[in-house]
Order: sequence, then C-alpha cells, then structure tokens
Amino acid sequence: MDDGSSSSSSPYKVAVPPKQKPWEEFSSGFKEAFFSDDPLRPFKHQPGARKIILGLQAVFPILEWGRNYDLSKFKGDVVAGLTIASLCIPQDIGYAKLANLSPQYGLYSSFVPPLVYALMGSSRDIAIGPVAVVSLLLGTLLQNEIDPVENGYEYRRLAFTATFFAGVTQATLGIFRLGFLIDFLSHAAIVGFMAGAAITIALQQLKGFLGIVKFTKESDIISVMNSVVKSAHHGWNWPTILIGSVFLVFLLVAKHVGKKKKKLFWVSAIAPLLSVVLATFFVYITRADRHGVQIVKHIEKGINRPSVKQIYFTGDYVLKGLKIGLVAGMVGLTEAVAIGRTFAAMKDYQIDGNKEMVALGTMNIAGSMTSCYIATGSFSRSAVNYMSGCHTAVSNIVMSAVVLLTLLFLTPLFKYTPNAILSSIIISAVVSLIDYDAAILIWKIDKFDFVACMGAFFGVVFASVEVGLLIAVSISFAKLLLQVTRPRTALLGKIPRTNVYRNILQYPEATQISGVLIIRIDSAIYFSNSNYIRERLLRWLIDEDEKLRAGGLPKTRFLIVEMSPVTDIDTSGIHALQELYRSLEKRSVELVLANPGPVVMDKLHVSKFVDMIGEDKIYLTVADAVQMCSPKFVDVV
Amino acid sequence: MDDGSSSSSSPYKVAVPPKQKPWEEFSSGFKEAFFSDDPLRPFKHQPGARKIILGLQAVFPILEWGRNYDLSKFKGDVVAGLTIASLCIPQDIGYAKLANLSPQYGLYSSFVPPLVYALMGSSRDIAIGPVAVVSLLLGTLLQNEIDPVENGYEYRRLAFTATFFAGVTQATLGIFRLGFLIDFLSHAAIVGFMAGAAITIALQQLKGFLGIVKFTKESDIISVMNSVVKSAHHGWNWPTILIGSVFLVFLLVAKHVGKKKKKLFWVSAIAPLLSVVLATFFVYITRADRHGVQIVKHIEKGINRPSVKQIYFTGDYVLKGLKIGLVAGMVGLTEAVAIGRTFAAMKDYQIDGNKEMVALGTMNIAGSMTSCYIATGSFSRSAVNYMSGCHTAVSNIVMSAVVLLTLLFLTPLFKYTPNAILSSIIISAVVSLIDYDAAILIWKIDKFDFVACMGAFFGVVFASVEVGLLIAVSISFAKLLLQVTRPRTALLGKIPRTNVYRNILQYPEATQISGVLIIRIDSAIYFSNSNYIRERLLRWLIDEDEKLRAGGLPKTRFLIVEMSPVTDIDTSGIHALQELYRSLEKRSVELVLANPGPVVMDKLHVSKFVDMIGEDKIYLTVADAVQMCSPKFVDVV
Repeated sequence: MDDGSSSSSSPYKVAVPPKQKPWEEFSSGFKEAFFSDDPLRPFKHQPGARKIILGLQAVFPILEWGRNYDLSKFKGDVVAGLTIASLCIPQDIGYAKLANLSPQYGLYSSFVPPLVYALMGSSRDIAIGPVAVVSLLLGTLLQNEIDPVENGYEYRRLAFTATFFAGVTQATLGIFRLGFLIDFLSHAAIVGFMAGAAITIALQQLKGFLGIVKFTKESDIISVMNSVVKSAHHGWNWPTILIGSVFLVFLLVAKHVGKKKKKLFWVSAIAPLLSVVLATFFVYITRADRHGVQIVKHIEKGINRPSVKQIYFTGDYVLKGLKIGLVAGMVGLTEAVAIGRTFAAMKDYQIDGNKEMVALGTMNIAGSMTSCYIATGSFSRSAVNYMSGCHTAVSNIVMSAVVLLTLLFLTPLFKYTPNAILSSIIISAVVSLIDYDAAILIWKIDKFDFVACMGAFFGVVFASVEVGLLIAVSISFAKLLLQVTRPRTALLGKIPRTNVYRNILQYPEATQISGVLIIRIDSAIYFSNSNYIRERLLRWLIDEDEKLRAGGLPKTRFLIVEMSPVTDIDTSGIHALQELYRSLEKRSVELVLANPGPVVMDKLHVSKFVDMIGEDKIYLTVADAVQMCSPKFVDVV
Repeated sequence: MDDGSSSSSSPYKVAVPPKQKPWEEFSSGFKEAFFSDDPLRPFKHQPGARKIILGLQAVFPILEWGRNYDLSKFKGDVVAGLTIASLCIPQDIGYAKLANLSPQYGLYSSFVPPLVYALMGSSRDIAIGPVAVVSLLLGTLLQNEIDPVENGYEYRRLAFTATFFAGVTQATLGIFRLGFLIDFLSHAAIVGFMAGAAITIALQQLKGFLGIVKFTKESDIISVMNSVVKSAHHGWNWPTILIGSVFLVFLLVAKHVGKKKKKLFWVSAIAPLLSVVLATFFVYITRADRHGVQIVKHIEKGINRPSVKQIYFTGDYVLKGLKIGLVAGMVGLTEAVAIGRTFAAMKDYQIDGNKEMVALGTMNIAGSMTSCYIATGSFSRSAVNYMSGCHTAVSNIVMSAVVLLTLLFLTPLFKYTPNAILSSIIISAVVSLIDYDAAILIWKIDKFDFVACMGAFFGVVFASVEVGLLIAVSISFAKLLLQVTRPRTALLGKIPRTNVYRNILQYPEATQISGVLIIRIDSAIYFSNSNYIRERLLRWLIDEDEKLRAGGLPKTRFLIVEMSPVTDIDTSGIHALQELYRSLEKRSVELVLANPGPVVMDKLHVSKFVDMIGEDKIYLTVADAVQMCSPKFVDVV
C-alpha cells in the first residue's frame, strides 16, 4: 500500500493526532454510526419558527415539494398515475390470492397506503401497493398459524395484526436510525431469493392457469409438480388453459416489445388491463364459466372498512402477528428502499433511508387499520411510473383515486374475469424478478456470493420462502463474520524503477529485499481477528525462513508490517501485537511498523506499545522503513 | 495511504492479477477460512506408516513430547503438581458449592479431566479442574430448571447432562474447525464479565463467611445485600466471622507477598492449604462447631463412580442440558483457550486452538461419565503451575494423583473444616479476576470497548451471570456489525516536501490540492457498507464544495479515491461505485481511482467498471493520479 520514501536524509515522523476528549471521542463515533447523514444540518442557525416549518417539512416532504408544484408536473403525474392504476388493479386482485385473502383486500391496499406515502415519502418514482413476494411470504407465514379457508375471519385478523406490526417495525427502525440493518441482506442473497420467489409464485399460478380445483398447499416445486401431474387426467380444464395461454403469450410479447423499444413501454403497461377486458368480455359472451372456466365471481363493492378493532392486541396471536410482521416488514422494507435508491440514483436526488422507513411504517400502520395488508414499493410498477414520466408522488394519489373509483363503481365488471387471466398477469409480472444477468455477474465477480445466491434460490424453490429467506440471511451473516475474522495479509515487494511497494501476487515483477519481510495487514485489528493476524504474520515469517534456508540464504532480520489499511485497533489487537513482538524477539527478528493511521498511532502510544518497540521503529512509509533496515539499499528510482 | 509518484514521465500501470480457476478461487478462500494454520502440512510427502504415527501424535501429543521426557523435567513437574494440588483441593470443595453440588464432585472433577487432558492437550502450563466462574454459571443455569435441595438426584443428572453436552460442543467446534467462533467474545466484554462474576461469587461467599443460614437464592447484588442486612441482628455468627476474617487477611497478605516477590510465590500457593489445616485443627480443638460455626461435616470417601446412566439422553431435560452445556461449555472454552495462548506466548510455543478444543471436549465428555462436572483451565492455578516450574502436562497427572489419594484416604480429615475458611479461600482467589489495570487501559484505548466492559460488569452484578453474558455477547456483535457497516473514510493531503499523501487529521500540515479531492476508503466494500460508502463520498464532496464556494474558490473537478485499504469488493460494492460514477458525472466531477488491489482490480475488470470510467483513470499511487488531474502541479520533493 505504501511507498515512496518521504525523504532520503531524515525520515518524516509519524504523527500522533491531537487528543480528543473522552466524550467527544464517544459522541463522534456515535454520530458517525447513527447520524452519518447529519439529518439536523439544515436546522442549524435557523430561527425558531423556521425550525418548526423545517421540522414539518422533514416529516411531510409534500409541504416542501408541493410549493413548487405546477401544471406541467401534474400532467406528467396524471398520465403516470393512470398507467400504474391500469397495471395495479389486475395485479392487486391476483396478489391478494397469494396472501390467501379475498380480491378486494388487494385493491384496498392500493388505496390507503399510497395516499399516506404521498404525504410522507421522499421518493418521487416509487409506486406503492401490494407486491408479489411479500404477498406470498405473508400468505405462507399466516397459513402456518391459521387455516385461511376454515377460519377466514381469524386469518384476516392475524393478517391485519401482522400488517400493523410490520408498520411498527419499519417505523421503529427509521425512528431509531437503525436503517442500516437492512444492509445486512446481501445483494447476491436477494437476487437468489427473488428469483426463487418468482418461480414459486409462477408455480402457484399453475392452479389458476390449468384450472385445477384440488391443489397442494405446499409451495415447494416437488409438491406442486406432483399436484399438477396427478391432476393431469381429470383436473385440467382445457378452455381455461386456452384462454390463459393466449393471453400469456400476448402479455409476454407486449413485455418484450416494451423492453426493446423504450418508446413503446406503454404497450406493456396497458396489456394487463386490456387482457382483463378482452378475456372478461369473451367469457361473458361465451359463458365459458359453464364449461369449467373459473371466474372471479364477486368482489365486494365499497371502500375499505375500518379494521382497528380486528387487530389482535392481546392473546396468543399478538406474538405470532409480531413475528410475521417483523419478517414480512423487513422484506418489504428491503424492496422499497432498494427501489427508492435505484430511481433516486437515476434522477440524482438523495433519499434519506431512515425517513423513508418512517413513511413506509406509518403507511402500513394506517393500512392495518383500514383493512389493508402489507404494501410496499413494487419494482415493475415503479419502473412503469418512471417511464410514464411521473414527477412526484402525486402519481400515487392519482392511482389511488382510480382504485377508489374502481372500488365504488367497477367491481361488478370483474364478475366474469377468468382466474386464468389473473394467473397469466402474475406469471408475466414475476418473470422479471428472475435476473439472469445479475446471477451471471455474481458468478464472475465472487464465487462465495454465488453460493449465497444459489442457496437462497434453491431454499425457496425446494423448501419454502421462509427457508430461503433464512438461508439468505445466514449466508449473508456468515460472509460478514468471515470478513471480520479472516482479513487478508499480503507480501509486498518493490516495484522496479520506483520506490513503491506492492502486493507481489498482483505485481510479480516486484522484488523482495534480502533480510527484510514486508507484510501488509488489510483490516482493522479487533478481538475477532487479532489472534488470526498474529498467527498469520508468524506463519509468513516461518514460510519465508524455510524458503531462505532451502536456498542457503541468510534468514530474515526485519519484519516490516505495513499498517496503512489498519484503521483501528482495540485492546485485543494491542495484546496480539505485544505477543507478536515477544515471539519475534525470541527469534531475533526486529518488528518495524510502517504508516500507522491516526487512531492506531494514538492507541499504540496510550498502551505504551510505542515505548516497547521504540519510536525509531515506526515510519511514515515502507520505503523509509526499508531504508532503515538495510542502509546499504539505496533508493534509486 | 498512498504516495510517491511511481515515475514522473509515464505512470506505472495498475496490474490485473493472473486469473484463478473458479474452483481454485473458492477452495483457497475456504482453506484460508478454516485451515489457515495448514494442519496437514507435516503429513505431506511422508510414507504411510509415518503418516499413522504422525496422526496418532496429532491426537495424543503426549506420544510426541513423551519421547523426550526425562528426569529433570519430571522433577519440575512433580513440584508444580504438588503445589497446584495443594491449591486445588480446598478450591474444589468450595467451587462445588457454587455449582450447588456436594464437595466430592469438585474433587472428582480434578481427578479424571486432568488425566484425559494430559494425554490429548497441547498446552504445557494449563492446570485443569473446576473453576469459579463456570461453577457459578452452571449452578445458576441448573437451578433455574431444578431445585438442587429438593431434587438433588435430578439436579445432579442434569449437571452431568450439561457437562456431557459442554464436552460435545467443545469437541465439535474443534473437529469442524470452528474454533474462531470463540474469538467473537471481545476482550473488553470478558474483562467486564469476569470482574462482575468475581463480585457475584464473593457476595455469595458472604453466606459462609458470616455464617448466615437463611440466604437468598438470587445472585444480584441487591438481593444479596438485602439478605445480609436483614440477617444482621440474629443471623450473623461471630465466631465464624472471626475465623473467616483472620484467614482472609492471612490469604490476602500471602497473595500480595507472592505477587510482589516472584521468588516467594510459593507462599501464596500453599497459604490456602495451610489455612485449611490450621482452621480445621482450631475448630476440632475448640469444638467451635457447637457455637454455630458451620463445618463441612462429610465428604464422601472413594473415587468417582460411573455416571453414564445418569445422563439424560431422552426426555425434556435433554434439550435443557444441551442449552446449559452449550453456554457453559463456550465460556469454559474461552477461558481455557485464553490461558493456553497466554502461556504459550510466554514460552514461545504454538497452540493449535482447534486441537485444544477437541482435547477439552473429550475430557469433559469423559468427565460427564465419571461423576465430574465441567472442568476447564484455571487461571490462578495455571499461573502457579507455570511459576512452580512445570515443564509438561505431567504436573496435571501428579495433581490428579494427589487428588486421588485425598479421595481415597483424606476426606475424613475435612470433617471439621469450617465453611468460612472455604469462603475466604474463594474470595481471595476471585479478587484476582478483577483486573483494574485492564479496565483502565480499555478506557484509555477505546471508549466503546469500555462501555461493553461496563455493560457486562453491571449486567452480572445487578442482574445475573446469564444477563451479563448476554450483554457481553450482544455488545461484541454490535461492535463487529458497526465495524462492517460504518468503515472510516479519510481526507488526504500532501505532506510538505514529500510526494506522500496522508490523512489531514493526523498530519494537519498536509495540504490539499486545488480542484482535487482525495478520499481514502478504509475497508473492503461489501453489501453491508456499500451504500454508506457511496453516500459518505458524496457528502465529502458536497461539504468540500460548500467550503470552496464560501471561500470563492473554483469547485472540485476530480475525486481521487485511494483504494489501497479496499481489499475486496462484491457486487453491491460495484453497484455503489457505478452509482457514484453516475452521480459524479451529473456534477461534472471526474472519478479517479488510486491503487486498487489485486482482487478489486480483477472484479472491476470483470464487471466492466474499468471500461465505464476508462482505464486511464486508474493509477498506481495517489501521486500519479494527482499528476494527471493537475498537470501544472509538478511534484517537487
């Protein structure tokens, strides 16, 4: 890492940074951990009244952007809002089924939550509503507790309870600025989990798609395929399959067109609604429902009814609802925050993750009290929203208004909508969750990440969403733990014609200096890795001496440890250094440090380690240290 | 961190390392994680028969060192063995009480486990037997499940079950090479936990010390002090207090003498046995037991009876035993491995942590089948062992033999031993677990570590050992998580008269270069920190531009990211870099990288990020990069 001698005559002294007071030291660490984005910065040096306004604007960003809102923005938002409404209505009806709820609950969840989000959220492009993966996860977790068919009422109550606690979880994480917790799910694990969930959801749709009446409740691929094959002789309904297939092909073609030609994205956006209209009309005319084509039949008319009283606040189900809400809430959060960040990066505006979580949490709490289940940001609808030219969250309000009108007046029109068309819409929607390219890139970049990705994928497909999620989280954590226990170390050599020392593996032309071993430690030294680092350094030395002995060369006399990447050290780390020093002393090898950073230098001083090895054993650069160790070795660049 | 331009005319090209095959890449990572010490190395290039011998020696190190064993070593071991035996016998009797077991179980545990360890262990200085903290922890956890007074037999069975599973846990961790798991308990947390446990144990001894009959079962300081004060009027027994105090003073003075003059360490080593002999004799003569001085009364004569059949292998208690064994086994392991490492470092020999765990595990499994409870390495006795001049684990065999003789012939002699003397011995033993100096050093070095230390301490003292342990583990993990989510970043400047760029906070004399912002990222970029790093870099830029604007200076045109400490990057990290690049593009700031390491360079290539920013934007050193960014800035050293 280091290099270039600081000066050939007298080396530059490694500085100890100015001492902080204990409280300052603690509070600056705390601030960087929890308030790294400095959220109170705009409030500084402002009069009292202005602070209140700023505070209100912080909680309700609509107060801020609403003041510059104009007609041209409104036009864009109306078009985008209508487009995502046309997309969300058929999806909602289908997703509600994934959660084992009646269709109207999907629509409810596209009415209240988007309104709340529009007031409090800071993303301009996200489209709020029920999404496939969370619906499936919620449905799976809930039916582990209560049978949705036999005890529909209790099941619904538990669903609202879980939604309530999902909201509480999300808001709490935001308020306590623990938003970074969702960063613990690795990208690779999410890619695998999403792809697995997409396959599982698509498999579930085979029921509606093939018109099978008796279907397994398990979600793993083996049970589902078993169910499908078993019912092949008598259970498949050919008119259903015909309708489903025709429209699935139509939807996939529309999707493909929309992807290839960005200008024609609206084709893919309105295709689902168009399919629903055509298929419904077709069934109504031919009365195909009399030939076994299953139809939606009935969607309750009218807007969301209050459901506060249905939430379990006492009894056994509180804890179960809390657990389910916690898991589903975290998954929903991960999805929404990822969407928010992606589109913010595209339009180059900033999103405050913690504030966003408070908005999502509040919206789900409000939802749980108005007969909604967990809503979050939908990736496909957000992309359409973005491409239709939305400017602000007003597009969500427009969508919400359209859903309201649908609930009030249009639900009877869905009576003859065949279930097969909803299955086709869901299948065509979830295929885009399978991200081959990402998986291939992961394979190329990091083999361990790929194992995590596949682990989550196969976990979901062959076991269940919960198992897949558990695998994803475990592998993510294992990777972090490996990272902190097994830091890399590298052998450095001098790059020819320079004064720069670099990893010999990367620059095979770099040469070692006789009698001097230069090792770089690539991590902070903490209790979790201090023993490993000490042992690893000794092993480098033993290996090197073995090689030297085999070659009949004199043994190593100096061990230069390049400390540039060592950003911090704790008491265990200092113990390890002391033990290392003692072991080296016994082997008559001198320990030399190059470029310890400010924090490390401070701690080495306080712990008297500097006095132990001698201040003249610490240099600003590796080149300086080498010069001291082998004076005859003049640095000619 | 970087520095020294590689050459003033044409910069040295950053190399991409030779490509590894996927399997090699994965297996080398796996090897470094689990076999970093290369345990199979001596087996290489050896004939078959030799491999078997080496294998046996690996499992039973006694076969290796036993061959060079001679009389002079034996003399040292006998002296050391007799000394630690004199120390362990009274301690064992007292510690058994902490675990709510009869005194003989403490002696049993100093007989079988040390023998097994002597065959399999690789530490030469550790003294095996029951220890105070593990005894207390085991006692607390067990009595949460079964009342030791009312259901003595079941309680004992659960104790053996827990011991069995503690052994299984330890051996399993060793066999699967998961020894690094114990590194997750931070030094600071251990210091706090141990001090808290010492206080708790000392408080428990007030019962015996004051001769109180009715005493609380809780271990927190408030319940205990309450109990002590309440019984002040009628419950305290003055003869007991007199005996206890006199000998406590004697023990503490002896301890002090032993500490001050290394030559007189034997004074502190034999003081406990001497006290027991004197106190017992005194009570026997004065018949003080008739005046309310409580005595040991009865220790069962004879050696350990088999207890395999008493271990629960079926029923509800299996799971409880497993849980208790897991916790107590891990704590015991932490203590033993720490002791092994400390003394190995003093005498400069290597200890294989994983092999050590297998030895400790086997010894506890054997113990659980011969009426022993969990044994581990005792810090105080190991220190005495070391100072008495032990050479090998034979000192443990000698100690074990003395304990055997005691069990066979001497137990009746303990009949009149007053409980108060045992309490005094335990109090004087545990005070050395309170390590003020370590706590003060922790305060000086790291304030966060100090919070962890105090958290564990107060958790044990005011709640219970379990709570304290839970706090210690949680805080340790929180620290690791913070480490991986909130890496440091530093603003670099040029150190005057050199070509070296260093942290401006550490070297206030370092100067920034106009139009160029140089930031170092001090960690690998992973999913857990990629978003933070991206946001943090942007914030550095925004802050800097604000300052420049205030000063009327031109804004930043180049962001040089010093990547030396970035040892690895995953897909999320690359996404973050891409997003950063796009954000910078919108602000017309150019992104320049300095010195990406081999792994990072490889991944940047594979992911086409190099093509995105241009190969001419990557330099070997910061100095090279600066030269490109501001050509007018000539590097005059």
